[in-house]
Amino acid sequence: MIKVAVIGASGYTGVELLRLLAGHSQAEIVAVTSRQYEGVPISQVFPSLGGYFDLECESIDIESIAARADVIFTALPHKSAMDVIPDFLKAGCKVVDLSADYRLRDQQVYEQWYQSHSSPELLAEAVYGLPELYRDQIKKARLVANPGCYPTSVALGLAPLLARQLITTDSIIIDSKSGTTGAGRGAKEASLFCEVNEGFKAYGIASHRHTPEIEQTLSDLSGEPIQVSFTPHLLPVDRGILSTMYATQTKGFSTSELLDVFKIRYAKEPFVRILPEGQLPNIAYVRGTNLCDIGLVADQRTGRVIVVSVIDNLCKGAAGQAIQNFNLISGIDELSGLSAAPLFP
Amino acid sequence: MIKVAVIGASGYTGVELLRLLAGHSQAEIVAVTSRQYEGVPISQVFPSLGGYFDLECESIDIESIAARADVIFTALPHKSAMDVIPDFLKAGCKVVDLSADYRLRDQQVYEQWYQSHSSPELLAEAVYGLPELYRDQIKKARLVANPGCYPTSVALGLAPLLARQLITTDSIIIDSKSGTTGAGRGAKEASLFCEVNEGFKAYGIASHRHTPEIEQTLSDLSGEPIQVSFTPHLLPVDRGILSTMYATQTKGFSTSELLDVFKIRYAKEPFVRILPEGQLPNIAYVRGTNLCDIGLVADQRTGRVIVVSVIDNLCKGAAGQAIQNFNLISGIDELSGLSAAPLFP
Amino acid sequence: MIKVAVIGASGYTGVELLRLLAGHSQAEIVAVTSRQYEGVPISQVFPSLGGYFDLECESIDIESIAARADVIFTALPHKSAMDVIPDFLKAGCKVVDLSADYRLRDQQVYEQWYQSHSSPELLAEAVYGLPELYRDQIKKARLVANPGCYPTSVALGLAPLLARQLITTDSIIIDSKSGTTGAGRGAKEASLFCEVNEGFKAYGIASHRHTPEIEQTLSDLSGEPIQVSFTPHLLPVDRGILSTMYATQTKGFSTSELLDVFKIRYAKEPFVRILPEGQLPNIAYVRGTNLCDIGLVADQRTGRVIVVSVIDNLCKGAAGQAIQNFNLISGIDELSGLSAAPLFP
Amino acid sequence: MIKVAVIGASGYTGVELLRLLAGHSQAEIVAVTSRQYEGVPISQVFPSLGGYFDLECESIDIESIAARADVIFTALPHKSAMDVIPDFLKAGCKVVDLSADYRLRDQQVYEQWYQSHSSPELLAEAVYGLPELYRDQIKKARLVANPGCYPTSVALGLAPLLARQLITTDSIIIDSKSGTTGAGRGAKEASLFCEVNEGFKAYGIASHRHTPEIEQTLSDLSGEPIQVSFTPHLLPVDRGILSTMYATQTKGFSTSELLDVFKIRYAKEPFVRILPEGQLPNIAYVRGTNLCDIGLVADQRTGRVIVVSVIDNLCKGAAGQAIQNFNLISGIDELSGLSAAPLFP
Repeated sequence: MIKVAVIGASGYTGVELLRLLAGHSQAEIVAVTSRQYEGVPISQVFPSLGGYFDLECESIDIESIAARADVIFTALPHKSAMDVIPDFLKAGCKVVDLSADYRLRDQQVYEQWYQSHSSPELLAEAVYGLPELYRDQIKKARLVANPGCYPTSVALGLAPLLARQLITTDSIIIDSKSGTTGAGRGAKEASLFCEVNEGFKAYGIASHRHTPEIEQTLSDLSGEPIQVSFTPHLLPVDRGILSTMYATQTKGFSTSELLDVFKIRYAKEPFVRILPEGQLPNIAYVRGTNLCDIGLVADQRTGRVIVVSVIDNLCKGAAGQAIQNFNLISGIDELSGLSAAPLFP
Repeated sequence: MIKVAVIGASGYTGVELLRLLAGHSQAEIVAVTSRQYEGVPISQVFPSLGGYFDLECESIDIESIAARADVIFTALPHKSAMDVIPDFLKAGCKVVDLSADYRLRDQQVYEQWYQSHSSPELLAEAVYGLPELYRDQIKKARLVANPGCYPTSVALGLAPLLARQLITTDSIIIDSKSGTTGAGRGAKEASLFCEVNEGFKAYGIASHRHTPEIEQTLSDLSGEPIQVSFTPHLLPVDRGILSTMYATQTKGFSTSELLDVFKIRYAKEPFVRILPEGQLPNIAYVRGTNLCDIGLVADQRTGRVIVVSVIDNLCKGAAGQAIQNFNLISGIDELSGLSAAPLFP
Repeated sequence: MIKVAVIGASGYTGVELLRLLAGHSQAEIVAVTSRQYEGVPISQVFPSLGGYFDLECESIDIESIAARADVIFTALPHKSAMDVIPDFLKAGCKVVDLSADYRLRDQQVYEQWYQSHSSPELLAEAVYGLPELYRDQIKKARLVANPGCYPTSVALGLAPLLARQLITTDSIIIDSKSGTTGAGRGAKEASLFCEVNEGFKAYGIASHRHTPEIEQTLSDLSGEPIQVSFTPHLLPVDRGILSTMYATQTKGFSTSELLDVFKIRYAKEPFVRILPEGQLPNIAYVRGTNLCDIGLVADQRTGRVIVVSVIDNLCKGAAGQAIQNFNLISGIDELSGLSAAPLFP
Repeated sequence: MIKVAVIGASGYTGVELLRLLAGHSQAEIVAVTSRQYEGVPISQVFPSLGGYFDLECESIDIESIAARADVIFTALPHKSAMDVIPDFLKAGCKVVDLSADYRLRDQQVYEQWYQSHSSPELLAEAVYGLPELYRDQIKKARLVANPGCYPTSVALGLAPLLARQLITTDSIIIDSKSGTTGAGRGAKEASLFCEVNEGFKAYGIASHRHTPEIEQTLSDLSGEPIQVSFTPHLLPVDRGILSTMYATQTKGFSTSELLDVFKIRYAKEPFVRILPEGQLPNIAYVRGTNLCDIGLVADQRTGRVIVVSVIDNLCKGAAGQAIQNFNLISGIDELSGLSAAPLFP
């Protein structure tokens, strides 16, 4: 059994990590931390976990935790993550970081969108944890920067097109919609049931922090710098991200030809499902799983291709992908703990 | 009192018309029809209306209804509408048609997206009932083609930009999201609670029938033929449409400059609210009203402008706009029956 | 025009008062207060109200407000209400209080369930504002204690049975379910969208503060002291209360006989609708209105009667009833501002 | 591997069986049937299952299916189930029946609440599949009648009290609330999203078909005939049942004493969680699992005990319990395929 700790377990990403780890046959949780709930059993913080874990929330004592754990999942807000990760690494642990702190390779870009970085020397070492694109590097990594939820949905939806130069790089528009778990478990008026329910809005237009992360990956794929328009929206559902992506085609392929490109690209990927022509994805069909479903349409009238990708933002968009990365850095089956079928309805 | 009849009263558009007419001081409903519920009191079809109306649903007897009514609201599916409207007109009634049958001026376009047209001679006469663009013609109309819900949200959101040539006409991408009342009250598996709730999907990509209607209005505004990419999505809420619209700017205006253009254009419009810079609309804030809220952001990085507009799809997107048109053709105050504040939460 | 002020306007009860007052032809709002949003336009606190009100939120300056207003609506938490109401009364204003502070006639009972009372001398004067039971007293009142949401649904559902001794007084069980606006607009983890959505729970079993209020009214009706079992539950909807009430019959009447009792009792009540036999109420059919719908079934097998009543908790359960009381104490038409039809769906 | 077939796979109970069987290490699905979708891949009927199953829906050919399968799950409507079950038994299969057809031991009672029974001789043989009460009989059964969803929540919530005569048998009132999957996947107007969402209603008061099933089990437990008041309600959520149960105590135990009775009774039950004093269950905390959470309060004022139990109606209330029964009749670990933690949020 590989010993793991979950740092910052009392948020929605934390409970999802615990849910998945409860069903993982090769991982054993040795510590969970929460500042807010120190000393409280995690099964009281999340009654859903009653009977699954006996653990009490600890404070973050790096030495003590590192002595017990092989791999650390950090599910902290950005900035808080970089306060502890260097020490966990020094103590010999591997780290899968679910914050944004090590996702951007360029310190300057990070500091422009977030704040100053306290361990920029690790930016070069950290591996961006999107297995479908960077699997080989992840396997050897000591520090995995688990991707953001929106960037995951976008990168998987555009990778086959960019890698084969099938779209123009200045035409990309990304219209994303996320479930409300994406806003976290903090008690804010804007996240109240009656503010979100029966509502729908855009936010962070042209200014959302996932923009540079998206652009870094798309530029990697294309080999040239890419800028996108990215608009996130808040959906009145618990889980799920759907990204609708627009780009101008370079070659005028048909829907079926483009679907073939996707099928070939993802033929060996266990978590990507390419839908048949005429079918479009729904967030309801990936709920609770590490799956990414992708559909697309080539619009002959406008010369554009419209790609739609969906993931569960808490799972493939956060905790599930973190487990996938954990499996890769631990040298175990990539599907361990991630094979359950979606919960529908 | 102006006597009105609602033809096809048992759908969601029907009940919304009745709700609004219940509060309209100058309209009296003299007949409601429903094939499915003939002989049934409308307050049994919609228990919400108990105490508001004594009417029983009738079958469509044009002669009998025309003898009692001055103005006819047709809330029928396309094709069914054109089966009765010419006769209501011949009988001397004015008609506000909520179907798609008289919205497209070009018979050929109509027949390409729908089916053959049985009264094409009326296409030239019918006035497209978007008061913010065609108020003067509507006032004189005998037959008003009430706009579709998506096209209303799009036309109001793009009109100021197109009228002043502030965006390039080949760059327009429209990503729309609609509440489930838009799918009607027919008993279909895809509209079941458990299929829609906690779900989200795109549909009709590059093939939705509102596309030519959108393009007709935008082309009117711009003076040249426009083609757009239009993607509708299904939201797990009862009411509301939010359209996120992307276009490349021609002049590089700032957010505040563009907002000024909108404020000037809509200064005298009672149902359009332009939000201050930094604020974006939410469907929850227009619920139950004829309002359209608009916000926008000029993205200096990409040179695009992103406009977000919201309406209540059943109200400004259907029944409310129909009442507004009714008020105009009847020569009464345009706000009659439409002044109630939004229901929030 | 009667001048009114809304004290505590930034909660859900506040915005509902403002929504209804926006459509009230004989009331003019001269002041709104909010500690949290002092100096902020109310249309920024609630964007739904944009264009309806120009007012800025004030702090509570009793002298200044009393100089401008005839009637005060206090939409404050209990305890905060009693801190200001005596002074508003001294300054010559009438008050409709939406808190719990003056609902219980017995100071001792109040202090047992809440905390010590600072103006117990007003308890005898305050009139419990349930017009269907206490209309004549309300008309003459200076201080109206607007009923709680649960107690309103219960009192209307049981009044006809208790007044005619048709049920045994020790057999009453009340199982109530409320929409989430009932939990207020405070930013609490338990009220977050992802905590409430797709969930359902009971709370406050055998200890909810509405219990003594329910018992006071039922005892009034029956003429003897009544104790009930009362269990509230939290519904994942914005608005609505449904109370399912069980009691043992004394006379073995049939469903239709009992319905006749209700129809006679409420024949002249404009806001109570008794449903026909075989039909049961739904919170969706009273949304946004001051209506109370009631259905019932006499169960011959068990000798019990089961009554189901529904209201909109924000409207007949709070702000709507407050307007109804305002109309009564102002000597104007009881339906003023309250005649709009329900918003369905 | 045990070979199983799912008869009637295209409903919500069907898809839940398939979801659970996908994660069951000792079951192999050899056939799925659907009249409506004959010839269609099950992964097209339920896109969530894409990649998990290759099966096509068959028609019900008993001989062919019995030749391939050891155990049959029948997820058909009542009446349809009894049309095929006797033949599956004759062909040597074991059957877990999720319909109501073999739940009631008394043919007369069955025929009074449903319709005439075509294989009454099997009523005596069939075992009621509630493992917490009838585990030993189930292990030896050839035909298991899987309990209804409401009856499961009620029996588990009242068993400890009735078995120890802690409540009076004529005082039981059951107020239950179910998610909308309970209404099935049939396309009915009443199940449409916009009819259910933001709504809440009671239905089938004093006449719901689960009443005799509840009474049969409670009478078994108590040793004397029991009649209850049972009121189901429809919740605007996908999954979950919460039953609030009221009964008069015989001995005046405290909350903590009664909780001890429950803890002892269920100490060895893997799927029942008794909550600590002061905590009440929420349907959200058992989502997707076979768990039943129970909380209670002894109300000293009224002498009643109020028990609240929750289950996932599709899982412990249907498919999960069916798998539990399958495990028991197959002689394998009772938790096989049922150990995943709840999906929260």
